[in-house]
Parts: sequence; C-alpha cells; structure tokens
Amino acid sequence: MSDSGYLHSVEFKVRDYECDLQGVVNNANYQHYLEHARHEFLISKGISFAQLHEDGLDLIVVKVEIEYKYPLKSRDRFLVTVDVKKEGNIRIAFYQGIFRLPDMKLVVRAKVTGAATKNGRPVFPAEIINKLGLD
Amino acid sequence: MSDSGYLHSVEFKVRDYECDLQGVVNNANYQHYLEHARHEFLISKGISFAQLHEDGLDLIVVKVEIEYKYPLKSRDRFLVTVDVKKEGNIRIAFYQGIFRLPDMKLVVRAKVTGAATKNGRPVFPAEIINKLGLD
Amino acid sequence: MSDSGYLHSVEFKVRDYECDLQGVVNNANYQHYLEHARHEFLISKGISFAQLHEDGLDLIVVKVEIEYKYPLKSRDRFLVTVDVKKEGNIRIAFYQGIFRLPDMKLVVRAKVTGAATKNGRPVFPAEIINKLGLD
Amino acid sequence: MSDSGYLHSVEFKVRDYECDLQGVVNNANYQHYLEHARHEFLISKGISFAQLHEDGLDLIVVKVEIEYKYPLKSRDRFLVTVDVKKEGNIRIAFYQGIFRLPDMKLVVRAKVTGAATKNGRPVFPAEIINKLGLD
Repeated sequence: MSDSGYLHSVEFKVRDYECDLQGVVNNANYQHYLEHARHEFLISKGISFAQLHEDGLDLIVVKVEIEYKYPLKSRDRFLVTVDVKKEGNIRIAFYQGIFRLPDMKLVVRAKVTGAATKNGRPVFPAEIINKLGLD
Repeated sequence: MSDSGYLHSVEFKVRDYECDLQGVVNNANYQHYLEHARHEFLISKGISFAQLHEDGLDLIVVKVEIEYKYPLKSRDRFLVTVDVKKEGNIRIAFYQGIFRLPDMKLVVRAKVTGAATKNGRPVFPAEIINKLGLD
Repeated sequence: MSDSGYLHSVEFKVRDYECDLQGVVNNANYQHYLEHARHEFLISKGISFAQLHEDGLDLIVVKVEIEYKYPLKSRDRFLVTVDVKKEGNIRIAFYQGIFRLPDMKLVVRAKVTGAATKNGRPVFPAEIINKLGLD
Repeated sequence: MSDSGYLHSVEFKVRDYECDLQGVVNNANYQHYLEHARHEFLISKGISFAQLHEDGLDLIVVKVEIEYKYPLKSRDRFLVTVDVKKEGNIRIAFYQGIFRLPDMKLVVRAKVTGAATKNGRPVFPAEIINKLGLD
C-alpha cells in the first residue's frame, strides 16, 4: 500500500454529459467511475478484464454499496481510489473512494464485491487472487 | 400495497447499447432502471422530481445497495418494482427488485435511501412523506 | 410500407437520466434511441444483430447525419420511425425520424448509413438485403 | 491555428463501459467524446457552457454529421480535435476528428453545427463569435 493509504488511484474530470437535470453528476455515473478505476487497477496488476472474458472467466460484481456524500459538478476534477481484500473464500472486496480535487473532499465511499464465474458458475479465481497478492 | 406485493412496477426491455463487452447489461445501467422506476412511482403519487427541483427542493440519493443476482441480456424484458418505507426521521428507503419476464427470475435486489435537501441542507420532506402515505 | 408512411416505429418515453444540464435530452442519447429502433426493426425482419455478430458478421454504422429540430424533455413520449433503402451496391441507408407524442412534432430527422463487415472487411450482406426486401 | 493543423485537442482513453456487445466503442459514445472536446475548447476560449445556460443563452447543436472510419477498442488512447468556422450569419461549424494514439489512425471525422438560442429563439451569438475570433 502506498503512503497515501490506498493501493491505486485514477484521476478523472467530470464531463458535461455526465451531469443531469439537477446540475450534478447522475448517480449511476459514479458507478462508471468506480468501475473504470477498478479495471485500471486490475490491469496494473497484470489482470486483463477483456482477456479474462475471452478465456471464459468473468470477474463479476455481485454487490455494490455506495454512499453519496457530496455531489460532483460540471468540470470538477476528482480521484477514484481502490483498495482490495479477500472476503471469505471466493469473494474479493474492493473498497473505493471518490475525492474531489484539489481539496480531497469525500464525494463517494463504496464497497464493491466481486466474484469469478466460468461458464456462469462460481469458481475460485486462484490466478487473480495471486496476482492481487491476496493469497 | 397491491396483491402482487409491491406498490409500483415499471416494465422495460433491454436495449443493445445498454450491454457491454461481457454481453450483458452493464452494472451501472441497472441503477438507471431503478432510478427511472422510482421516478415513475413518485410521479404516480403526484410528486414531480423536476418540479421539486424548480422549487429548490432536491430529493437526493444518499445510499444505494445493489445485489446482482442474475444478468440481463440483449432484448430481455423485465419488471422493476418499488416499495417505500420511512427510515428514521428524515430518510426514505426504497426497496426495489428487478425481475426478468416472463419467468420473474430475480435479477437485482436493491435498497436505495433518499433524503431531501433545500439549498444543499437536509430538510424534512413533509409534503413528500405525506403524498407517499408514510406519515 | 404502412399507411403511416414508414416501415417500422417504436415508442419511447424520456427517462430523467437521459436529460442533461440544459434540461433536455442529451444529443448523444437520440443516437441511442435511433439505434434501438433500428435494431427492433431488424429483429422484426428476422435479422438478429447479436446473432449476426456471433456468426462473424457485423452490421456497422459508417455514417450518421442527424438534424436536431426540437428538444425532448423529461417524460416526453415519442415515436422513432425507420425506413430503409439500398444505397449503391453494398450500403444500406436508414431514414429515421423522431416525433414527439401525441402531437407528432418533429424532433429529429436522421439518415444512418450501414455496411456489413466480416472479420473487419466489407462484404455484400446478401442475406440482410434479402430479408429487408431490398433486392 | 497550431502547427498541428487544429485549434484544440483533448486526449481520452476508452473506458470498458463505453464498449458494447460488438467489443468496440458504441457509436453514440463518440458523440459524447466530440461534445466533451468542444466544451473544453469553448472553456479554453473563455466561454462557459454552464454559465451561458444560467444567463438564458443556450448554444445548441442543430446538426451532426459523423463518419465512422475505424473502431476504438477497450483501453485505446485517442485524441479528439476541434476546429471552428462561422457558417452563414448565425451558425458555427465545428470540424472535429478522432485519432487513435499513438499511430494517429483516423477513427471518426465529424462536422457539428451549432446555433445559439435565447428563451428558445435563435439569436446571433455576438459574444461567442467574438471570443472565438470569428468576427
């Protein structure tokens, strides 16, 4: 873990089309940001989401819990962080945060629980667990 | 509550652009479906989301918890259900489900917690609570 | 062609998350509507977009021309129409319109030009042309 | 105009959720990319899209023409360019390109025609024309 207290982070900037009638980022779009940061994190660990899918292995999300603390507005810059832990025997929990830049105001706190499936059935993702250093 | 066990439901059909690389509906899009069904429900109760915003009152989502049980594919028809309860003094909890049609297979189970703000500050949404019959 | 003057139409209703800061449907979303109506039309002719892809044949869009005549707002109902013509030897032109309901006010007029590719190379989509009755 | 031959450019990276069933970026998303680059360009010229809207002036898109030359895939980096010309007396034409990085392969060529409206009526956007150096 880095000194900053999280394993990985990706910087974004709000695009106007991500905002809705209320003038703030639409709730579902935060899930897009979280997903993109997780995928970037996995790639940084040598895990290709697209490659896994071609191999018949899908890393799927089984649960998301998102707390909305403060809204992002048009053109805000922000950081999406990723931490990861093994949960039970076959699940992987991603602890994520979204922070507005440059003041690091907390925007969203999320826990995203993932599992691996092969041909639709749950499997133990040994290679992923290993690459993430969770074994 | 209706005999079916939920207050309100909206029928949808998966559009191809809502599916991603894995050939199933992208996770964030379920949140769009849930949102649209909630807004339809509120409208059915005489609560206009857009009107509220013009009056300075925003009904915001403070938390979502979504369990992904089974994926929807291209062109699947599905039902999004809405139930609602008061939570504590100022929060409203929406209990929602997504069910594939016609077999009613459970796709997503969600709890979405809402609160009202006026000029960015939390307020007791008396009128909304009243219209929802929660007082 | 039907009496109404177009081959196929699909009815939609604007969802709040499709609207942006300006309080109207975001421009890119009209392209989603047009795409969904085209796919529904193709399905109605026995042409499965997803099935074609699995067979290695992709029906791709090579050009879109969209004229924005009038904006849709939250909860507007509207109709998306589809007409189709062969263009040159290997292209298919979809002439589409979006009309607000119930007053049939013209919202968008579009021409979408499609072509077929197999393993990335252009091919003559004989089967598609045939199913569309364009040969 | 810069030596590179265009006025402004913004670099992007494809996010997985922007790809669809066919494994490439969904057509409508290119329109999002084009829009974001235009807005960044306008901001760089001191024109705030959101600010304009609050002043009652909307810069709207009246027409888009997009040629799809080559598809972007997951994680591709790309550049979106913006050039601008006055068209007739009250329209502004944005000439845009999308180029894959680092090989600068042409992905999309687009012309987006904008006009200004105040309270829904077309107006001559003198201030915008001036800031863009088109007068």
